[in-house]
Amino acid sequence: MTSYQLPPALTVSPVSHDLDSAIQAHLDQQTKPPGSLGQLEVIAAQMARLQNTMHPVAGPCWHGVFAASHGISSEGISPFPASVTAQMVLNFLHGGAAINVLCREQGVTLHTIDAGVEGDLPDHPELLRHPAASGTRPFNREAAMTREQLEHCLHTGAAVIDQKAADARVISLGEMGIGNTTTSAAVLSALLKLAPADLTGAGTGASAEMQQHKARVIEQALALHGSELDDPLGCLRCVGGFEIAMMTGAYLRAAARGKLILVDGFIATAAWAVAEALQPAIRDYSLFAHCSNERGHASALEVLGVEPLLNLGMRLGEGTGAVTALPLVRMAAALFNDMATFDSAGVSGPAEPES
Amino acid sequence: MTSYQLPPALTVSPVSHDLDSAIQAHLDQQTKPPGSLGQLEVIAAQMARLQNTMHPVAGPCWHGVFAASHGISSEGISPFPASVTAQMVLNFLHGGAAINVLCREQGVTLHTIDAGVEGDLPDHPELLRHPAASGTRPFNREAAMTREQLEHCLHTGAAVIDQKAADARVISLGEMGIGNTTTSAAVLSALLKLAPADLTGAGTGASAEMQQHKARVIEQALALHGSELDDPLGCLRCVGGFEIAMMTGAYLRAAARGKLILVDGFIATAAWAVAEALQPAIRDYSLFAHCSNERGHASALEVLGVEPLLNLGMRLGEGTGAVTALPLVRMAAALFNDMATFDSAGVSGPAEPES
Repeated sequence: MTSYQLPPALTVSPVSHDLDSAIQAHLDQQTKPPGSLGQLEVIAAQMARLQNTMHPVAGPCWHGVFAASHGISSEGISPFPASVTAQMVLNFLHGGAAINVLCREQGVTLHTIDAGVEGDLPDHPELLRHPAASGTRPFNREAAMTREQLEHCLHTGAAVIDQKAADARVISLGEMGIGNTTTSAAVLSALLKLAPADLTGAGTGASAEMQQHKARVIEQALALHGSELDDPLGCLRCVGGFEIAMMTGAYLRAAARGKLILVDGFIATAAWAVAEALQPAIRDYSLFAHCSNERGHASALEVLGVEPLLNLGMRLGEGTGAVTALPLVRMAAALFNDMATFDSAGVSGPAEPES
Repeated sequence: MTSYQLPPALTVSPVSHDLDSAIQAHLDQQTKPPGSLGQLEVIAAQMARLQNTMHPVAGPCWHGVFAASHGISSEGISPFPASVTAQMVLNFLHGGAAINVLCREQGVTLHTIDAGVEGDLPDHPELLRHPAASGTRPFNREAAMTREQLEHCLHTGAAVIDQKAADARVISLGEMGIGNTTTSAAVLSALLKLAPADLTGAGTGASAEMQQHKARVIEQALALHGSELDDPLGCLRCVGGFEIAMMTGAYLRAAARGKLILVDGFIATAAWAVAEALQPAIRDYSLFAHCSNERGHASALEVLGVEPLLNLGMRLGEGTGAVTALPLVRMAAALFNDMATFDSAGVSGPAEPES
């Protein structure tokens, strides 16, 4: 089988470090003890660097919720029926879900993307209909999707960024798909070489027994697909989901276009991990919003070597953790741009250490 | 010596728990896996409980920065000269400090309170001038303040809430005062029975040697003042600061008036700990915004048995950590008020566990 080819539009260049010393000098001249804004200084410096400017901006902001059905959901791995995926898409369109409330509160533009939801969905200006199929195949029995479906998903994720988030400076992605914590655990298990049992958690509320079953289903899949899982896109095709594959494409395109990416929880991390395996420079553009309460997310973040901003015990999905962290990004930019310096404010700096 | 009497205006009543089951039932009916918003659900429930309503509101928001000079600053415990306190007050009035930027970004009303700053300060509509004196006395040699000064501070802190934050539903307090991490370490050491060396950190940037000196200065003070430190207000008088004492009064008054209190970092925690020792019911009204990077804050929070929302390595003061956490409070209220329920959205709930 020939190896997968990534289209040029999904190629991510490392950021320039030309401004690094100017950025640090600016931060150290602001009226505060050096470094005392902690992570807010780190975020501001990252934004300035990737936008290659001393005046970073944290908006406009765009959020996409990618929804898909999962063949694996028929394997008894979730307490919610698969029909909830389509029902929740309707809830997004009616504005009643958690992500709607958070996006309204933060002034974030929100689109929902039908990546492959089983069930009838209406025409709606905020729904982008690009289904790869009406759900994946159960990945413990066969590949979740075909090569054409995978390519459709990567392409569509990128196209959504080009069409709907062209002007956005900060983007985040969320998801809806009953069964997708199992899918994500399979992807992360194959990619990061973590044991399925260490990555399978409650999801929307699976019992301890159901969680053990999730781990067994993933072990079956790992045995079934074998070495194709060693290739990041092979892994995505064999055990991924349509929404996850679209998110991988969207992340890569957003980074290729120089946007700051706020990565949400467990499922978003799975999509991001595939993107990072393909284009490691995506790290320069990425900020991890939170550590989910979903078991396995902390382990995955640790193996990926990234620090999340928030740890609030959230595990809702939809990208809610990412949008919850967005105000930190905005405050970081405002502080960088608007604080006085010691000189401009006439404030004495610290005494030089005695030699 | 007669014991200190707290005025009736500073008496805090426990919140009612009448709505607890209605609040929990509402949270569990919203379109999300139960509990999946983590701390945001806890915050919303706390707000609903203390406002005694099923429609909690997270605004208007008010922030006060209390500034004072510290006699102890002449004892070589800070790399910044004491004159920086007055210079930073001018910076607040000109809008150039971190707290100005954060309050503008979040639409928070900001006042600066001169609790006892050495140096000339101008008339300004955002500066409330209520100095107890031009700085405390060095607390390692004598009591930091007189009984009359302490009473002035408690009364003034409460009066500021009554006059400037009457309509606010959420309040936070910050501070400026070169030397006040040493003062706060002394207060917390006496109150929580923690070793001075475990509570003395870098402050605005003290060297390791300076930090050891801070601890020795506090040990001197603990020996000097002896049993008067066992009384919370005696402790505040002997080793506190004017801004800290005013913050204690303001916290108590805000809780007495049913406001949600967002507690900032190390110095705010010292002021709050005195308030809590006097009126333990203040816990019902309090939310800890962040764990400061100032050494000792984490230990103090642990002994107090409280969990902070954020841990971003911040240690700037001014109340910056509190205002940084404010969006979480607003999002928590919005989610509680505006999300659809399973019934209203026509979304299937989780399957009942098999019996």
